[in-house]
Amino acid sequence: MKNAIGREIPEYIEGIGKLEPYQGAWEKLKKGWMDEKTMPPPNKAKLPHQNKKCTDLEDAIRKTNPHDGMTVSFHHHLRNGDDILGQAIEILASMGIKDITLASSSLNEVHDSILKYLHDGTITKIWTSGLRGGLGRAVSRGALKVPVIIHSHGGRVRAIHTGRIQVDLTVICASASDEEGNCTGAHGKSAFGSIGYAIIDARYSKQVIVVTDNLVEYPCVPVSIGQNFVDYVVKVDSIGDASKIATGTTRITKSPMDLRIAKIAADVIEHSGYFVDGYSFQVGAGGASLAVAKFIRDKMRERKLKGSFLLGGVTSYCVEMLEEGLFRSIFDVQSFDAAVSSSLLNNRLHIEIPAALYANPFNCGCMTNKLDIVVLGALEIDMDFNVNVITGSEGNIRGASGGHLDTASGAKLTVVVCPAFRGRIPIVTERVHTVVTPGETVHVLVTERGICVNPKFKELEKRLKEAGLNIRDIKDLHKEVIEIVGKPKPLEFIDNIVGIVEYRDGTIIDVIKQIKE
Amino acid sequence: MKNAIGREIPEYIEGIGKLEPYQGAWEKLKKGWMDEKTMPPPNKAKLPHQNKKCTDLEDAIRKTNPHDGMTVSFHHHLRNGDDILGQAIEILASMGIKDITLASSSLNEVHDSILKYLHDGTITKIWTSGLRGGLGRAVSRGALKVPVIIHSHGGRVRAIHTGRIQVDLTVICASASDEEGNCTGAHGKSAFGSIGYAIIDARYSKQVIVVTDNLVEYPCVPVSIGQNFVDYVVKVDSIGDASKIATGTTRITKSPMDLRIAKIAADVIEHSGYFVDGYSFQVGAGGASLAVAKFIRDKMRERKLKGSFLLGGVTSYCVEMLEEGLFRSIFDVQSFDAAVSSSLLNNRLHIEIPAALYANPFNCGCMTNKLDIVVLGALEIDMDFNVNVITGSEGNIRGASGGHLDTASGAKLTVVVCPAFRGRIPIVTERVHTVVTPGETVHVLVTERGICVNPKFKELEKRLKEAGLNIRDIKDLHKEVIEIVGKPKPLEFIDNIVGIVEYRDGTIIDVIKQIKE
Repeated sequence: MKNAIGREIPEYIEGIGKLEPYQGAWEKLKKGWMDEKTMPPPNKAKLPHQNKKCTDLEDAIRKTNPHDGMTVSFHHHLRNGDDILGQAIEILASMGIKDITLASSSLNEVHDSILKYLHDGTITKIWTSGLRGGLGRAVSRGALKVPVIIHSHGGRVRAIHTGRIQVDLTVICASASDEEGNCTGAHGKSAFGSIGYAIIDARYSKQVIVVTDNLVEYPCVPVSIGQNFVDYVVKVDSIGDASKIATGTTRITKSPMDLRIAKIAADVIEHSGYFVDGYSFQVGAGGASLAVAKFIRDKMRERKLKGSFLLGGVTSYCVEMLEEGLFRSIFDVQSFDAAVSSSLLNNRLHIEIPAALYANPFNCGCMTNKLDIVVLGALEIDMDFNVNVITGSEGNIRGASGGHLDTASGAKLTVVVCPAFRGRIPIVTERVHTVVTPGETVHVLVTERGICVNPKFKELEKRLKEAGLNIRDIKDLHKEVIEIVGKPKPLEFIDNIVGIVEYRDGTIIDVIKQIKE
Repeated sequence: MKNAIGREIPEYIEGIGKLEPYQGAWEKLKKGWMDEKTMPPPNKAKLPHQNKKCTDLEDAIRKTNPHDGMTVSFHHHLRNGDDILGQAIEILASMGIKDITLASSSLNEVHDSILKYLHDGTITKIWTSGLRGGLGRAVSRGALKVPVIIHSHGGRVRAIHTGRIQVDLTVICASASDEEGNCTGAHGKSAFGSIGYAIIDARYSKQVIVVTDNLVEYPCVPVSIGQNFVDYVVKVDSIGDASKIATGTTRITKSPMDLRIAKIAADVIEHSGYFVDGYSFQVGAGGASLAVAKFIRDKMRERKLKGSFLLGGVTSYCVEMLEEGLFRSIFDVQSFDAAVSSSLLNNRLHIEIPAALYANPFNCGCMTNKLDIVVLGALEIDMDFNVNVITGSEGNIRGASGGHLDTASGAKLTVVVCPAFRGRIPIVTERVHTVVTPGETVHVLVTERGICVNPKFKELEKRLKEAGLNIRDIKDLHKEVIEIVGKPKPLEFIDNIVGIVEYRDGTIIDVIKQIKE
């Protein structure tokens, strides 16, 4: 069957079940309520004054009675510095547990350590927002029998909330915890900031282990996750390397091309009609995206604008803008530099939020619904403004859905920034390999060769033209790109589906096929 | 059938269902998990940038499509200053809605305004922690066909969590809210402090209305309840009279009798073995209870002790102790003076907690499980140390279960403070009219005529005797009381059950019968 953007979706996949095709960004939300059932949370009990402390992670995992076919979840706030996911899978594998569903809020290169467990039947299914490195390459080549399910950050909350992901065990890394499991990422030697993605797991997982390298005197404040959700507490020497939280993508680019794109994007925002007092703003952490904040900051100073809130993945650049008084508040579901932690800890206008409040589409209104302007990157964008942020030019899974489609669906103005081509590869392309974010939620594309406005948004186009900006038809831009780099040979795939890409409402927006080698 | 403390409990009550008899304070918790199912939360959706604001409370209530037989819930943080519960019931009654189950976290004298709706079929069932004034008298005389169900604060969370209370509509009063329903009680002209009891309602109610007299610029910080749970927002002129939050019971008594009892209780605590560095402490707001804090404060200074946390209903006296550095933190589910709000707002060691974290028995360990010492009042206490805090000497319902049995079940040392008799009425009595808190969870009774230690706790008795305290057998004390005031004529009741008293795990610890007139 074909979904609303014309992508072919199978009706059923063994190990996943019946698939619902994508119907449009807001179709399922229009009723105001959902038919889909939700998941009753577990029912536990503890006697007073018990001891939750375990000698080590293995002791804790043994106490949860792991079993074949279980689902184990993790959060990715430590990004490429995370030591614990690998250790936990290693322990489960050494216990002979098979057929694990791995449900991490995302996966990074550091998790290549578990690669072998995709091949020996330990891990047979993966839910994640992102997949990179060796794991991405292996899955793209058919390492898993069941396709990986790529969700957005909001979609993940929805999937747990509705019981599509039923977590048996969650392992939560905390940079500070007390003996009862009140914990946070906001302080300690491995401080990583917000722990917002793990909060839904804590609420729904049948068993919850908190791992920390900083066991503090009771009570641990702030209580980012409360003891009422935590079964076991483990003290380890190190949860990972907090310095690796901040990857290159979270610093402002020095690339002249990215800076040029960012400057144009800032001009678009300035003249969009949405750059007004009290506006809200999110920028992705990618190259040109974050650089937009730099130019926007100058424009806000000039115009003496004060914004309402900054949202999302938060960099120290956002913190500076808060401290300068350019925004009233920050809502933080994930902190991109370790340096953000002290702001989260000490500034009560810098607020840690659960992923449910950030982006879950199945509630009374998440914060992405309230967003005015978002700037996002792209691996590819096509003639319908559909965006690919998951598969690379060689067909490998090597990116993340993240909050891309969530914020695009909510923002009044979604600006995609990317170069028109990279090397000899067109980024502005006829048809993206994989759709993650549907074009109907993308307003503007900004490249170094000009601005393209989605034809759905005539008023916006008019405003930008009146401001004297260089607006081009995306088809013309594409033609120009092809003239420069030539039409690349199409990638070849075999019929085996290795990944499915969920839209935030749980419908399937695209599938990823296995690369032909 | 008889329950574990020998009280006769019917097997079934029309309109409530099968009753499970109380089996002992910790019997149901011993497995570590519960057989009882939990409630799946509702599944909603909103399109981006919608407007939740309603013209008035009636407009909002109409939008929720109220229906006969519905359950409507409220929170009681505004105590005797609350204007909104009465208005909401009035509106529902004017719309002709019948057969309402009223599920308020508690009810106060101010709610006598809804008395007539107990007689005309508008309200036919009540769940509450407390019942007083005209409502208490009416229910005690059989105004409701279905008995009122008295729960504790922790038990209420459990009942919502397991779906025994299924809320169709909750009306939340906030002293500050933004247009999306991010709200708090921590600031504004009607600031009342913690909004901790309403958080479970927000999560589970099918429809949620936030009523505020202080609509603030978006976003409202702190986000005590998030917009993702709120359907409608109403701005009114006043949510009530915050000055009436602080009733007489929240000030330190000047009564010489209460002060004498409090001083003895402080001596008991001092020599109990639990008065050590890092201990945690809760005092009720009643006459002698709060006064204990005054003497404990002096003893902490003398000994240079620093406690871990203060819990519970929080008075400005607790705030002073935090600010003096006598405790590391306060966990606040309900603020007893309006003055507590500024501490909650500005001191990050003064932490607002949901009732689930405070006292729900069905989770991985609430904070009452971590409590060392609690001081509680009593309307009556009997030879088994069972405590009545719900029915008065004339047989009327005129009190509240509150956190009494929750904290008693968790604390290492539960001290009940009360005079041996009041007027001509024995407080220390052969058999309490109504058991709320079972004697097995009460360690010590302190009266002006001496200290009685529950014979279950021999070690404690030994320690107190060694400290030279005046320890008496409770039977001797009772005999002395009867010699002074005489044996009161027993109250007469008819067979009709007007109330059932739930223990925190949902079993029935006692029933309340209708007064014979």
